[in-house]
Amino acid sequence: MNDNKPLILLSNDDGVRAKGLNELIEMLTPLGNVLVMAPDRARSGAACGITANEPLRYRMVSARSDVEVYACNGTPVDCVKLALEKVATRRPDMIVGGINHGNNASVNVHYSGTMGIVLEGCMKGISSVGFSLCDFDPDADFSLTAPYVYKVARKVLSAGLPSGVCLNVNFPKATAGYAGLKICRMARGSWSSEWYEADHPRGGKYFWLTGKYTNLEPDSEDTDDWALANGFVAVTPVTVDMTAYNAFGGLKDLEM
Amino acid sequence: MNDNKPLILLSNDDGVRAKGLNELIEMLTPLGNVLVMAPDRARSGAACGITANEPLRYRMVSARSDVEVYACNGTPVDCVKLALEKVATRRPDMIVGGINHGNNASVNVHYSGTMGIVLEGCMKGISSVGFSLCDFDPDADFSLTAPYVYKVARKVLSAGLPSGVCLNVNFPKATAGYAGLKICRMARGSWSSEWYEADHPRGGKYFWLTGKYTNLEPDSEDTDDWALANGFVAVTPVTVDMTAYNAFGGLKDLEM
Repeated sequence: MNDNKPLILLSNDDGVRAKGLNELIEMLTPLGNVLVMAPDRARSGAACGITANEPLRYRMVSARSDVEVYACNGTPVDCVKLALEKVATRRPDMIVGGINHGNNASVNVHYSGTMGIVLEGCMKGISSVGFSLCDFDPDADFSLTAPYVYKVARKVLSAGLPSGVCLNVNFPKATAGYAGLKICRMARGSWSSEWYEADHPRGGKYFWLTGKYTNLEPDSEDTDDWALANGFVAVTPVTVDMTAYNAFGGLKDLEM
Repeated sequence: MNDNKPLILLSNDDGVRAKGLNELIEMLTPLGNVLVMAPDRARSGAACGITANEPLRYRMVSARSDVEVYACNGTPVDCVKLALEKVATRRPDMIVGGINHGNNASVNVHYSGTMGIVLEGCMKGISSVGFSLCDFDPDADFSLTAPYVYKVARKVLSAGLPSGVCLNVNFPKATAGYAGLKICRMARGSWSSEWYEADHPRGGKYFWLTGKYTNLEPDSEDTDDWALANGFVAVTPVTVDMTAYNAFGGLKDLEM
């Protein structure tokens, strides 16, 4: 890959073979060279997890003039860290996660490996954005997302983002186009009925994580959940600084 | 366990056998009954990760009148979700993570399995607090932390916390007592030189995650890093809502 074009580092949490990743590569190449370091298998729900207790390896999967693809046995965040320090020959101009097969709006940002990539990029001081489509199907149709991905990625690449801020972009499942694009805040939401329980053939129970999501403020039109439910692309700016500044007052009596 | 005392749900990311967890059980029993669901092995760096692709199981490890201990093959967040829905006979009054062997201040909150527990508890609407000691030693001395743990946990249990806010409590490594306790914000910090590289005996390289942490604002006296560096217990209120509200203005031109 030559050095004249912007360098975009791309990863995901569905694994290097996922359709969403491979379609995103083609959406991003008009903007620059794309270096991919992605997990060698699905790592959905990896959040900002890192691999503390096992050694990691990576291998090249494919290469062409404007795209190099590597796979790694670590988490999405490991992929970013490893690519930045051991593979990239220069500092990327942008870090991108996705396109995720599934919704990363509202509280899902906390569990999302896609947003782990994006937060890691942001912590490294690089403009970072994650894209997710609200469709878990491995063969989901990403074609409607392409012009929006291009527009958002071009803006992030050219204008940058404020220090400590990254973007979480979610696309509703749609067949005939989107209603538009909204800048949103995270909805307050919660998961319940999270376990599918079954009998183990040798006794006892086993449990699969599943669950029912509830938007706790369905009438708030400024949230990502509302935007998605009404056909809009939801762009939520996300902060690395998780300090709850409004809570300082009530805690002062603990100081000593 | 009888129903007359508050119920405290406890987990950690160093695993059910870790010293920090077992010392924290004894610090919390004066405040209520303690239900422990902890990972069956070390899961440091698990963040808010969940197990999407494997079934989970749990087993009882020990029981006495005021403490029940279970171990689970999932992540710290899985432990909280499983305990709440499948083990606890009533809704806990407080959820606690720790005591972690290692520093969870500054950006480490994003990687921390301890804080994954706490954020999960907070997302379930339960007052939640995480405790971490800046000492990775498996045999670290937690004795100095006890009166501070008691004081913070008692306050959280009696007064609660604002909706969507949880606490990240970090203790400096000390031998002669702490300088006091400070309510702090997250320092801006970054990790670099993150990989230890070695030759694989059958060719190629392998990599262990390690790294050097830098406080990017060492002179800011209102941060958790500053408090710890100056011998104070650092209490950082953490918000579930990661929206970067100050970034809305610069993004409005994307709307359509």
